[in-house]
Amino acid sequence: MFESAEIGHKIGKQAYKQALPELREALLQAQIELVQRKKTSVLLLISGQDGAGKGETINLLYEWMDPRFISTMAFSEPSEEERDRPPMWRYWRTLPPKGRMGVFAGSWYSDPMRDRIEGRLPVKALDARAEQINRFEAMLVNEGALLLKFWLHLTKAAQRKRLKALEADPHTAWRVTQWNWDRLKSFDVAQETAGHMLRITNTPWAPWAVVEASDDRYRELTVGRILLDALRSKLDSAEQAQTPVAPALPLLRVNVDKRNLLTELDLSLALGARAYQRELARWQGRLAELARDPRFKDHAVVCAFEGADAAGKGGATRRICAALDARQYQVIPVAAPTEEERVQPHLWRFWRHVPRRGQITIFDRTWYGRVLVERVEGYCAPDDWLRAYTEINDFEHELTEAGVIVVKFWLQTSREEQLERFRAREQVAHKRFKITEDDWRNRDKWDAYQQAVCDMVDRTSTGEAPWTLVESNDKPFARVKILRTLCERLEAALAAPPRRPLADKPPAAAKKKARAG
Amino acid sequence: MFESAEIGHKIGKQAYKQALPELREALLQAQIELVQRKKTSVLLLISGQDGAGKGETINLLYEWMDPRFISTMAFSEPSEEERDRPPMWRYWRTLPPKGRMGVFAGSWYSDPMRDRIEGRLPVKALDARAEQINRFEAMLVNEGALLLKFWLHLTKAAQRKRLKALEADPHTAWRVTQWNWDRLKSFDVAQETAGHMLRITNTPWAPWAVVEASDDRYRELTVGRILLDALRSKLDSAEQAQTPVAPALPLLRVNVDKRNLLTELDLSLALGARAYQRELARWQGRLAELARDPRFKDHAVVCAFEGADAAGKGGATRRICAALDARQYQVIPVAAPTEEERVQPHLWRFWRHVPRRGQITIFDRTWYGRVLVERVEGYCAPDDWLRAYTEINDFEHELTEAGVIVVKFWLQTSREEQLERFRAREQVAHKRFKITEDDWRNRDKWDAYQQAVCDMVDRTSTGEAPWTLVESNDKPFARVKILRTLCERLEAALAAPPRRPLADKPPAAAKKKARAG
Repeated sequence: MFESAEIGHKIGKQAYKQALPELREALLQAQIELVQRKKTSVLLLISGQDGAGKGETINLLYEWMDPRFISTMAFSEPSEEERDRPPMWRYWRTLPPKGRMGVFAGSWYSDPMRDRIEGRLPVKALDARAEQINRFEAMLVNEGALLLKFWLHLTKAAQRKRLKALEADPHTAWRVTQWNWDRLKSFDVAQETAGHMLRITNTPWAPWAVVEASDDRYRELTVGRILLDALRSKLDSAEQAQTPVAPALPLLRVNVDKRNLLTELDLSLALGARAYQRELARWQGRLAELARDPRFKDHAVVCAFEGADAAGKGGATRRICAALDARQYQVIPVAAPTEEERVQPHLWRFWRHVPRRGQITIFDRTWYGRVLVERVEGYCAPDDWLRAYTEINDFEHELTEAGVIVVKFWLQTSREEQLERFRAREQVAHKRFKITEDDWRNRDKWDAYQQAVCDMVDRTSTGEAPWTLVESNDKPFARVKILRTLCERLEAALAAPPRRPLADKPPAAAKKKARAG
Repeated sequence: MFESAEIGHKIGKQAYKQALPELREALLQAQIELVQRKKTSVLLLISGQDGAGKGETINLLYEWMDPRFISTMAFSEPSEEERDRPPMWRYWRTLPPKGRMGVFAGSWYSDPMRDRIEGRLPVKALDARAEQINRFEAMLVNEGALLLKFWLHLTKAAQRKRLKALEADPHTAWRVTQWNWDRLKSFDVAQETAGHMLRITNTPWAPWAVVEASDDRYRELTVGRILLDALRSKLDSAEQAQTPVAPALPLLRVNVDKRNLLTELDLSLALGARAYQRELARWQGRLAELARDPRFKDHAVVCAFEGADAAGKGGATRRICAALDARQYQVIPVAAPTEEERVQPHLWRFWRHVPRRGQITIFDRTWYGRVLVERVEGYCAPDDWLRAYTEINDFEHELTEAGVIVVKFWLQTSREEQLERFRAREQVAHKRFKITEDDWRNRDKWDAYQQAVCDMVDRTSTGEAPWTLVESNDKPFARVKILRTLCERLEAALAAPPRRPLADKPPAAAKKKARAG
């Protein structure tokens, strides 16, 4: 991985001076196009050995380009608000929007690499993290990001020399601490780990650029040139949708006998008035207890509601809320994305509502919109919704891995029941707003929606985040089944041996994070 | 304040049952209009004695209305990210957007009242906080919010009774702790403090509704009715701009001799090439040291740049950035507000970028847009920009009070110099994008802009956040003056005795905050 970056590359002063003006002009021009067209976000990961000039390189980018459209993200120890959420949350919240460039001083590579170097992570676990990272990066690229990963490389000798030089200069001496010298001792382990990690995350869609860093001029020109080429190639490429860079799942099954998951549901299931009152009180009481259980402080709940219009999502939500303390939950109605959400990857607008530990977020419609309405209505290309299954599974995996309990409900009514409810709503003044032209139009695509639901369940009902199909022709039955399911999932999670979420490191260990990338 | 709420109000079961359906229907209808029209945000403060039914009242609102458009904000101990910023930041970040209802369980009243009750805040300081709160609330109302402040009142005897009842019921016993009983002992002090605070914050624009809380049915119907009346009156009122509820400053001075702050500047000030190099290096070096000074960790910097087009804001910004570590600052270019920003009070989009301690935010154009471009171009009503002076002063006061160093630059060029720069820009490919039709049009309003600048400086150059007028016909001179000013402000702040920002309480004390409201 590092061979070509140990041959002693150097650029003379004269050659540097000659090349620089043109490079800067071209970089600035490319940045202007980036800002004006708002089609792409740029993520620059600046990683590498201590003293390899990461900070200098970042400062140089600011000097060469317009600093108003660059943000640098540093990741030292995670804050409380970050520790209370899945580890990737802190990266999602800092993703640059389209039109901007985000420089990552430290990144999603920092934690696994440091943990490996310090012997806390077996190599198999490291490989699993790398696989997750590859998928995350594929998602970013598919969503329109330009992702450039730089590794600034120094040999051990060069690193020692550089640390000494920094230490000798009174202006930079503060940057060298005992920690750096200690780290030099583990150079070989670090080197090997980095080499391994870089190799398995060196994907066609997000390749690493390893840059020899001992000569400043060589490093500067090389980084600048790679950035320029990548920017230009992205800006000059055709704007039409591209084939996703990561493989989507194979195409969908054909259904020859008209039977499917949903036709098999017994929609006649119902609950009498007295049984409903009894069961409702029982499960609401149970939910109230569970949400106040001290063990719940190590968890959070993401509750996802999907269902055709008028299937009863709102009513079910209210029955859940009634059992909870209003300070403990948020209900997020998912409608069209806002301007700020549209310039981010699709899942960003859901990540921003991921609950802290001890909290509950109820989504009224969800990230599954992409494989339901967007698929059926043609709002996104088939490639996009096909890859969404994988992205969604990854998203939910990251939640569950961090102790978040993901509970997903599909509320199924018959076509006839839906019609009846539409008509009833039109009679009630304050419910009239709930019926729009769209609702009537969606009815015409009933079969296409049902097929999309079956595909969704097949592909995203995982052991850790299963779908619950709810027979919803009878509202009392549906509400009780939902409450009961939620309680049972909570009970199971609280009874399981506690797992320590990845981000939850003692501050002392976390402190070193800042420099691990 | 509490007299009418101690007369033993009660509602019978029958009367309650009769009144409820109509009330709920009307509340839901009002909420639908609120959501659809997106003209108003609703803030409900639910305060009052322990055991007065605050939680129950909030849960009831969720039952009566559509929970998807309500959010409840609870404020327990501030998080790290909150403690690192001015105390009001945590409230700004949770303000509900237009179309939504935010329920505040705990609010900006909690801290000062608790501090007063526990004897840490002299009554004069409490009054000063109340005055700040009144202005903050006036701003909210002027920005289109409906602000309803409920105080649920119990007599001491009723409170004791209620705590006992809660304790007796196994479902609610967990809510009563020794802390509650201890607090009952200080009932009289708490009562007196609350009465005082409520009286001085009982403004025409944000009055308190004191509700006797010992009878559940009375409390529920009263809160519901007050909320409904307020919602209806807000929704039914004419939509045109209203006169601000808080007094704006008197109208502006007339200028009879054509001399003003800006005409008095000596725009011939300039710096030769060698002096520039020397001074630039000197102040950049100084700035680099100051930003890395350990004492800077207790501060932050907000650096505000205003100036006519082509005055050199970008160039000056780059000279500052060059001295800093990219991980320490963000540059925020201020353009048209986004969709999410447009449904919030004007200052919200600046609050969201307020730096954490140890960090620096550079604004390229600022919150002064309202009294500059928006005033001159007529983008907002005179009442709105007139009240903005006060709101801005309050904003900057809250920053400086928390240790944030606010440094504001107005870059002044002559009209002729601007023309020359426009023409030069048109010649350079990568600078052409910087000149738009708007820029040429703005030139025609030169005099109006100059007047607006003078008014702005007169009204917002405060001791703690003074304006620095920068003679900018010569870029080297301007850049050095800016760097030097920034350094001097930083030096002065670091040399001053450390002040402990209000939000920075030891966690132990902060813990009780959750229940102080």
